[in-house]
Amino acid sequence: MKIIIIGAAGVIGSAIVSALETAHEIIKVGLKSGDIQANICDPASIDEMYKKVGSFDAVICAAGDGYFGPFSDMTDENFRISIDGKLMSQVNLVLIGQKYISAKGSFTLTSGSLANDPVPFGCSVSTVNAAIDGFIRSAAIELQNGIRINAVAPGVVEAAPAYFPYFPGNIPASMHRVGQAYVKSVLGAQTGQTYPVIG
Amino acid sequence: MKIIIIGAAGVIGSAIVSALETAHEIIKVGLKSGDIQANICDPASIDEMYKKVGSFDAVICAAGDGYFGPFSDMTDENFRISIDGKLMSQVNLVLIGQKYISAKGSFTLTSGSLANDPVPFGCSVSTVNAAIDGFIRSAAIELQNGIRINAVAPGVVEAAPAYFPYFPGNIPASMHRVGQAYVKSVLGAQTGQTYPVIG
Ligand SMILES: NC(=O)c1ccc[n+]([C@@H]2O[C@H](COP(=O)([O-])OP(=O)(O)OC[C@H]3O[C@@H](n4cnc5c(N)ncnc54)[C@H](OP(=O)(O)O)[C@@H]3O)[C@@H](O)[C@H]2O)c1
Ligand SMILES: NC(=O)c1ccc[n+]([C@@H]2O[C@H](COP(=O)([O-])OP(=O)(O)OC[C@H]3O[C@@H](n4cnc5c(N)ncnc54)[C@H](OP(=O)(O)O)[C@@H]3O)[C@@H](O)[C@H]2O)c1
Repeated sequence: MKIIIIGAAGVIGSAIVSALETAHEIIKVGLKSGDIQANICDPASIDEMYKKVGSFDAVICAAGDGYFGPFSDMTDENFRISIDGKLMSQVNLVLIGQKYISAKGSFTLTSGSLANDPVPFGCSVSTVNAAIDGFIRSAAIELQNGIRINAVAPGVVEAAPAYFPYFPGNIPASMHRVGQAYVKSVLGAQTGQTYPVIG
Repeated sequence: MKIIIIGAAGVIGSAIVSALETAHEIIKVGLKSGDIQANICDPASIDEMYKKVGSFDAVICAAGDGYFGPFSDMTDENFRISIDGKLMSQVNLVLIGQKYISAKGSFTLTSGSLANDPVPFGCSVSTVNAAIDGFIRSAAIELQNGIRINAVAPGVVEAAPAYFPYFPGNIPASMHRVGQAYVKSVLGAQTGQTYPVIG
């Protein structure tokens, strides 16, 4: 399978690459790193990326900016960092990608446990994670040609200790579990599902 | 109680007004109708609205634009009609309103059944409804001074027959049930909850 992984050099992306690279052709995409550079916050850049890649069977996105800060002084501008960086970026990857992806291909987006299990400072990220879960449920019933779509929703992960203080009592998920959730989405047959990954 | 109802003249808003007006002081807000006019898509207009109202105990929002159309040719611009019209508008009502609302006050937003029960053409609305449910879950754990926040998630409602063809097999919810869900949110004691209303 030819699989595009956006954010392949990141904490989550690296675990996905490790889980898939021995058996599949991986196209690594990053803002600055990777085989191809693209900015998923810019629809024109997404379109250009797909044109460069040519035919492909799966897209995995493990990139997406989120804003963390206290709710009491959060502004429209703060909130839209998550809306544009993590939600509309991933939505546009699918809206545009549906024109290029092979029949029976799949999209796998990244949401997160904050959708249902919030922590202080995380409101805009909880909101966009829940939005991504709603997006994949609804996109799944309209995508044509057997194309599937799922989300993976990691909690805090072992390789990101900087986040531990914000997630008291959360058992960090192993990078093996994280990688396998994306494998399940790409190589499985389900659609419209969110796969939670916690420790 | 002094309750601001945004979209008071609408299909859903009218049912809320009927359920609350005999026992409470209602401030009706609309884009053009109502006691006060405000555009919830504009943070400055929201701020001005709260300043005009003075002290208040509850805000109910039953306004919010959504885009319906086929997923196969949906664009970033189409999708953002729902993001700006129904999601960020309601998010900003709360971000700004938390500075003005009385202690122990409440916010009640409107999401919808599409969050979990999608129909063709509804993807951007499913997405923002799910986002609103995630927003109220996470805002609930950060709001101060006993301020609560919930969402009501109606399915198609009896008073909106124009929507029936898009919701095959959905039993329209009675306007009584719809009104009572908002009453439950405002007069009850729960927070961070989404109340579904189906027929
Ligand atoms: N880390 C966690 O504990 C955790 C838990 C749950 C969910 N998540 C979610 O997982 C996703 C990835 O998180 P992470 O911690 O792995 O991030 P990360 O280590 O910061 O890596 C981000 C990757 O995405 C790429 N990227 C960033 N912005 C981009 C853009 N606009 N266009 C294209 N590529 C872009 C970066 O490219 P370069 O390599 O060029 O910099 C990098 O490869 C995020 O959505 C995050 O919310 C993370
Ligand atoms: N109808 C349904 O079956 C149904 C089901 C589930 C969810 N919902 C949701 O319920 C909400 C209301 O729907 P509805 O059918 O009751 O709508 P509606 O009948 O069209 O009424 C909309 C109301 O909101 C006001 N409004 C519109 N844009 C506004 C803005 N930018 N700022 C301030 N006020 C604004 C309008 O003001 P004016 O009076 O000045 O025009 C009107 O009072 C929407 O979010 C919708 O998605 C509806």
